Amino acid sequence: MHTEHPDCAYCAKGELVERFGYEICQLPASTVYLFKEQSHPGRCIVASKHHVSEMIELSPAERQAFLEDVATVASAIHRAFHPDKVNYGMYGDTGHHLHMHLCPKYKDQFEWGGVFAMDPDLKKLQDPAELEAVAAKIRAILQA
Amino acid sequence: MHTEHPDCAYCAKGELVERFGYEICQLPASTVYLFKEQSHPGRCIVASKHHVSEMIELSPAERQAFLEDVATVASAIHRAFHPDKVNYGMYGDTGHHLHMHLCPKYKDQFEWGGVFAMDPDLKKLQDPAELEAVAAKIRAILQA
Repeated sequence: MHTEHPDCAYCAKGELVERFGYEICQLPASTVYLFKEQSHPGRCIVASKHHVSEMIELSPAERQAFLEDVATVASAIHRAFHPDKVNYGMYGDTGHHLHMHLCPKYKDQFEWGGVFAMDPDLKKLQDPAELEAVAAKIRAILQA
Repeated sequence: MHTEHPDCAYCAKGELVERFGYEICQLPASTVYLFKEQSHPGRCIVASKHHVSEMIELSPAERQAFLEDVATVASAIHRAFHPDKVNYGMYGDTGHHLHMHLCPKYKDQFEWGGVFAMDPDLKKLQDPAELEAVAAKIRAILQA
């Protein structure tokens, strides 16, 4: 996919995606990233392996595979971080690559009771060891 | 479901859900509502027929049926209103009934390029004839 969409972070990967995401692992229909902005501990992105704008452009089987990956990651976030709710959001108005934000919410804590900002820009992890420590908790469950 | 969860708008229906939603139709796994706040023309809610907090609590088959309904409604919104993107959001931190917000976005118009507010509270349709006129556009496609 690298050459077809060089400006798409999820296709080009490398430094474009590393601006905001830290790869956790591959799943059958997606790549799972820890969202470096961790105001919500455990926040992730599940990015489709297909460069499509919305899930309605996938075949039913492709869509199901992507959404089962989303459910798998949501379950892993619950097990690893014990949020009171996980929020699910697909936006990407100005992008063109299907991905789901999975945003764990904790009762009476940051943004509890409403939507969540695309990027609160308050707590962006930069230290690779720190990123890996958080990612490893989720990866261990996904790969168990 | 009425008696089991009388405080849940999506179970009790009636005036609780009418505070914010206008029923468009039933689909196999959901009820589809027009969101009365129409700052985003065509904004809808797809509510599961199951009173569960998140889609991970459904069986894979139930989850697939719900999400196929979501895809069906998103496609209908595209056909009826021609948005440049549909955003998909599941939040419900303080509620316990699975539902998806489908929020059409229009290039360079309200909230383009970001997330969407839970309720912008700017353009709530109240006139039943006006609500029905918008709902009918989506229903006609869903029931075709």
